[in-house]
Amino acid sequence: MHKVIFDTDPGVDDAMALLFLHHHPEIDLLGITTVFGNASVETTTRNALFLKREWGIDAPVARGEGRTWNPMRNPVDWPVTIHGDDGLGNIDVPETIDLPVDPRPAHRFIIDTVKANPGEVTLIAVGRMSNLAYALKEAPEIAGLVRQVIIMGGAFDVPGNITPAAEANIHGDPEAADVVMTAPWKVVVVGLDVTMRTVMTRKMLADLVTRGGERLKLLSDISQFYIDFYGRHVEDGMVVHDSCACLYLVAPELFATRSGAIRVVAGGIADGQTIQKPDGHAFPPGNWDDIPSQQVCTGIDVDRAMALLRETLVRAA
Amino acid sequence: MHKVIFDTDPGVDDAMALLFLHHHPEIDLLGITTVFGNASVETTTRNALFLKREWGIDAPVARGEGRTWNPMRNPVDWPVTIHGDDGLGNIDVPETIDLPVDPRPAHRFIIDTVKANPGEVTLIAVGRMSNLAYALKEAPEIAGLVRQVIIMGGAFDVPGNITPAAEANIHGDPEAADVVMTAPWKVVVVGLDVTMRTVMTRKMLADLVTRGGERLKLLSDISQFYIDFYGRHVEDGMVVHDSCACLYLVAPELFATRSGAIRVVAGGIADGQTIQKPDGHAFPPGNWDDIPSQQVCTGIDVDRAMALLRETLVRAA
Repeated sequence: MHKVIFDTDPGVDDAMALLFLHHHPEIDLLGITTVFGNASVETTTRNALFLKREWGIDAPVARGEGRTWNPMRNPVDWPVTIHGDDGLGNIDVPETIDLPVDPRPAHRFIIDTVKANPGEVTLIAVGRMSNLAYALKEAPEIAGLVRQVIIMGGAFDVPGNITPAAEANIHGDPEAADVVMTAPWKVVVVGLDVTMRTVMTRKMLADLVTRGGERLKLLSDISQFYIDFYGRHVEDGMVVHDSCACLYLVAPELFATRSGAIRVVAGGIADGQTIQKPDGHAFPPGNWDDIPSQQVCTGIDVDRAMALLRETLVRAA
Repeated sequence: MHKVIFDTDPGVDDAMALLFLHHHPEIDLLGITTVFGNASVETTTRNALFLKREWGIDAPVARGEGRTWNPMRNPVDWPVTIHGDDGLGNIDVPETIDLPVDPRPAHRFIIDTVKANPGEVTLIAVGRMSNLAYALKEAPEIAGLVRQVIIMGGAFDVPGNITPAAEANIHGDPEAADVVMTAPWKVVVVGLDVTMRTVMTRKMLADLVTRGGERLKLLSDISQFYIDFYGRHVEDGMVVHDSCACLYLVAPELFATRSGAIRVVAGGIADGQTIQKPDGHAFPPGNWDDIPSQQVCTGIDVDRAMALLRETLVRAA
């Protein structure tokens, strides 16, 4: 069993990834930690509770602190044109959900859970990297206790999506992302290089509803607004960014990876850009020296990945 | 005929490119302007005069000012391990060459020559972009009078060579490169994305000496040191970076290109990185807006390009 903490900002594609984690038979979801990004942390926490209730998920929800690593960073607008005003595709999520939130802040929940399960926990982070960075700051020793960190974020050999240089998850808190990428734990980055190739079409989603019933109906309802947005970029479907990070956990053999130290640019026109020094390339002494080598996904078997995603989504939990 | 000013920092691969320009029947070399980079501007100017004398080139040589756009930039060490202490592979270039240098600084030579040949001059720039930026600063109107600018520099979808983010020509004067890339003239950038694929092997070079005589013997002598350096990166040969820019001039059909605004990062860990916003990608308002769309080379027909290079090098001038 893969023990997982899902650090997330639901978010439409986050919802799909959460259902994947909930349904996959080899995944034990220990907790859901929320972060700002697709919406404010108040909204993403409410949405996590909503999905927990609707889908009958046992895992506790712990709320993140909702601030960037560098307090001087200007907040950006929430991407309401992509995820809707409610962060879940404008499906009229109730304003409050009557479920308890874990009393600890997200980063403290991460620290405690990792320490209680040494060597066993995978952190799957698909929003800003803020919570992971705060956890490392408060308890650097967890780096040696986490099994691996799988990140949805970044853009290496392809353009970004929030600027030509940067992907939105990393751009939203670049200093936190640099802390996470350069820490002495195992990081796998699943960025736009692969996620932009994974498209769930309207037809696929309709088939899932037919096969999967109410849970899938909710997922489909959530996703329609997002599909309308992505209609500009892909053919009648949605890019399943966050699910890719979850697919890597259970089927890493579907991905091609490249190893090398990763740094994140902070400031200037490349703000939030992820840059890897591929292992084996020699450079003069510089900013990538003496940093752990991490994995960047450069390829994906799209057909098998999408098949695994769809089959898992329609399983009974 | 293509009227050309060659802005160069010879430099071993610069020497090969210069011989290509000298020998190609459809190129009229109007001038050689020197810039620092592979060595100091004193050395590159001396080397340009040396090659002019040895190869019987008529074009005048005008010396650049030898300073970066931003005077606060720290100078970098010259890459003596690649181009040798003399900038030409340690072949004992005479300390001084008894040939006159044009009385004008390089950027003034560029301005005057462009104005004397409105709409006709191609600037091929294969060192730091300093001279071109100074020319634009002193006479912005030349942007409308130049036929095109072909640059060897930058790294877009591949790692750099001086840092994981940056290629050396651009990294050596990023502010100047940003001026050049964003000016309202036609720019084609031939960067590491294509140049790293173009290798002249020792055997090819030996064949050229057999066919081409003394001029090629000098080129081969100059190149041995550089080949020894590149032995770490490619199989028994040298990457012909600067020649690629010249090949583009006469055979653009051998290249695949992508259009979009280009900016150059100044400062931070991505210092000197070239970033293109591909046309057709939408982003929120940002630093690539309202900038002319330029061409980036993303592909090259290596076999035909290398064949054209070799056949041109062995022509009688």
